[in-house]
Amino acid sequence: MKLRTLAIAAVAMGLAGSTLAQMKPEDEIRYRQSVMNVVGRAFGPMIQMAQDKRPYSRDIVEKNTRVMETVIGLHWDSFAPGTEKGAPTKADMKIWSEMDKFKAAADKSVKAVGTLSETLKGGGDEKAVKSALGEVGKTCKGCHDDYRLKEARN
Amino acid sequence: MKLRTLAIAAVAMGLAGSTLAQMKPEDEIRYRQSVMNVVGRAFGPMIQMAQDKRPYSRDIVEKNTRVMETVIGLHWDSFAPGTEKGAPTKADMKIWSEMDKFKAAADKSVKAVGTLSETLKGGGDEKAVKSALGEVGKTCKGCHDDYRLKEARN
Repeated sequence: MKLRTLAIAAVAMGLAGSTLAQMKPEDEIRYRQSVMNVVGRAFGPMIQMAQDKRPYSRDIVEKNTRVMETVIGLHWDSFAPGTEKGAPTKADMKIWSEMDKFKAAADKSVKAVGTLSETLKGGGDEKAVKSALGEVGKTCKGCHDDYRLKEARN
Repeated sequence: MKLRTLAIAAVAMGLAGSTLAQMKPEDEIRYRQSVMNVVGRAFGPMIQMAQDKRPYSRDIVEKNTRVMETVIGLHWDSFAPGTEKGAPTKADMKIWSEMDKFKAAADKSVKAVGTLSETLKGGGDEKAVKSALGEVGKTCKGCHDDYRLKEARN
């Protein structure tokens, strides 16, 4: 492929002329929200299964766990200093004043998703998988309770 | 884990009381945009490598390809009839009048990412990987040229 064609493709994607290291706060906020949206959409059906509100499907759990495992944490770097505001966000300002605590809480969710994945790979039965899903839910809730505002702020 | 704790976790995630089959058009639009945002963020550094605007890093390419491969296409179902509008979107209304053509164009990008992934797994060298990246870029551009508006519409 010619460089010119690639350049046109990059322009088409809105990537030209900037390096990702120069992302604007609003882009970082949007990216955080995008990752959380993808994570939430993957987790939604699974937590419903764990609550017996939807039939258990190992196929869906495996597929959605793979999604969660792949994307969760992609956005931690997007909480860098300077990204506190710039677009409506539910991220509590506490995140930046106690970043270590926030990262520890966030890391729990990564580990819980890892445990869920291991449970599946190890052939865990429905009960074991639902238990692992519950643990994931607790870590989501833990971090949201502490660091996600109920209403978006500017 | 007790069901009650899980229910609280589900409420905390904004998932209680609804099944995902009842998602609103604005949620579908937001999800489409979230997936594309995650895909774009993964592809950005890679297209820059293919353009020699950033040093080639096999590690980054492998990680970001895994992200693209996992999430690309998650949102096709979110273009279902009834999701044409409901929030600002760049999705061209043509998508719904020529859905088969749109899906064929979208599928090209899934296949190109699959080829990129195979190239990496097969031990492809920098030149081969950059060529596969270029092909991915072409399929992104192809679909965007035809189906993504320059400005968001309501």
